[in-house]
Amino acid sequence: MKISMLVYPHFTPLDLIGPLQIWSQLPDADIELVAKDLTPIPTDTAAQIVPTHSYENAAARPDILFAPGGTAGTLAIAQDPATLAYLADRGKHASWITSVCTGALIMGAAGLLNGYKATTHWAALDALEGFGAEPSKERWVIDRNRATGGGVTAGIDFGLAMMAELAGEDAAKMAQLAMEYNPNPPFNSGHPDVAEDHIVAAVVDGFAEATQQLDSLS
Amino acid sequence: MKISMLVYPHFTPLDLIGPLQIWSQLPDADIELVAKDLTPIPTDTAAQIVPTHSYENAAARPDILFAPGGTAGTLAIAQDPATLAYLADRGKHASWITSVCTGALIMGAAGLLNGYKATTHWAALDALEGFGAEPSKERWVIDRNRATGGGVTAGIDFGLAMMAELAGEDAAKMAQLAMEYNPNPPFNSGHPDVAEDHIVAAVVDGFAEATQQLDSLS
Repeated sequence: MKISMLVYPHFTPLDLIGPLQIWSQLPDADIELVAKDLTPIPTDTAAQIVPTHSYENAAARPDILFAPGGTAGTLAIAQDPATLAYLADRGKHASWITSVCTGALIMGAAGLLNGYKATTHWAALDALEGFGAEPSKERWVIDRNRATGGGVTAGIDFGLAMMAELAGEDAAKMAQLAMEYNPNPPFNSGHPDVAEDHIVAAVVDGFAEATQQLDSLS
Repeated sequence: MKISMLVYPHFTPLDLIGPLQIWSQLPDADIELVAKDLTPIPTDTAAQIVPTHSYENAAARPDILFAPGGTAGTLAIAQDPATLAYLADRGKHASWITSVCTGALIMGAAGLLNGYKATTHWAALDALEGFGAEPSKERWVIDRNRATGGGVTAGIDFGLAMMAELAGEDAAKMAQLAMEYNPNPPFNSGHPDVAEDHIVAAVVDGFAEATQQLDSLS
C-alpha cells in the first residue's frame, strides 16, 4: 500500500499527522512524505518535518495521494506550477485522491475535484465551488475515489473512515482503540453550528483575510 | 509563555502535534522542541521532526514542560540518564509539568509524578503506580501543576483543557473552532470500556510485550 503525502511550507501539521498516525497501522503501509526537495519543511507551528521523497522520485502510481491544509501555505502551494503538475500527474494514476482541511483546495487547483462532492475547513467551503466541486459540510466525504476531510482534527475521523475502506472495519476499530480515540472535548465549540456567537464572530473575523484569499484561488 | 516539548527517537508524533497545534494559538506562545541534540528525530511513523533546542540550551525555567509518549521510544528514553537529568532539573523550575500518553512514564521516571494523580495510555495505566502516582482513567487529569493526557488523541482534549487554564475558556473555545474539533468518530471503539470484545482482545494482545516492558520501568 503505497501512500504519498504532500508536505509544503507552512502547512498545518495536525492535518497530516492524524491520518499518518492511523495509516501507519496498515499492515502493508509504505508511506512517503513528498515535497519539492528534501529540505526540512517549516509548518505553521515550531515543528519542521523532513520530506522522504521529492516530486521527481515519488511513487508514480500511489494507492493514496494526500494533501494537508494550512492557511498561508495553501494559498502559495495551490499556485505553484511544479506542485500542481506533480499532483495532476499522480492524480491520473492514484487509486485514491484525498485531502484534509484546505488540502482540498490544492487538489481542486490541480483539477482533481471537478465534478466530485468534497469537504474542507468550514471557513473555506465556498472556495471549493470554484474548482467545480460540490461542497458538503459533512466531517468527511467519500465520493467514488475522492475522500476529503474537514478542518484539521477532522483528519482523524477521515483517516479512520479511509482505514475501514482500505483494510476493513475491524482494522479501523483496532487503530481507534490503539490511539485511544474516545474524544471528550472540554467545550462544545468545534463548528460554527454549535459554538457560541461571540466565539464564531471572533474566529470568522480572524480568518477573514485568508478566507477571501482562498476564495480568489479558483 | 515559554513551552519546552521533549522529542526523542520513535515517539508518537500525534501525542506532540495535538497540543502543539493548540498551544501555537496562544498569543504569546514561544515553543521549543527539545532533544539530546539537533539531529532530526525519527518517530513511529514516516515523519521525522527537527528539534529546535538541545538539553544544553533549552529554557531554564519553562512555563510548560511537556513529554509525548511512544511505545518503544518511551522504554528507551525513560532509562536515559541525560534525558532524566534534563527533565528533573527543568521540572524543579517549570510552572506546569505535563504529558500525553506514555509521556507520563517518562515524567514518572524523572521523579516528577510522585504523589500526584495522573493518567496515561489505557494500556500503561498500571505502570504509573510504580512511580508513586495515583493512576486515573479520565481523558485528562489536572492535579495542582501536573497535567496529563491519556493515549495519543487525548492530547487534543488535554491541550484544550490546558489552554483554558493558561488563557481562559474563550481562547480555548476559539482554538477548538479554528481546528474544527467537532469529533465524529466513524466507530465507537476508542477505549476498552466501549470497544467490542474481540477488538479489545486483539489490541491488548498486540500491546502485551510493550505493556510488560513499561511495567518494569519503575
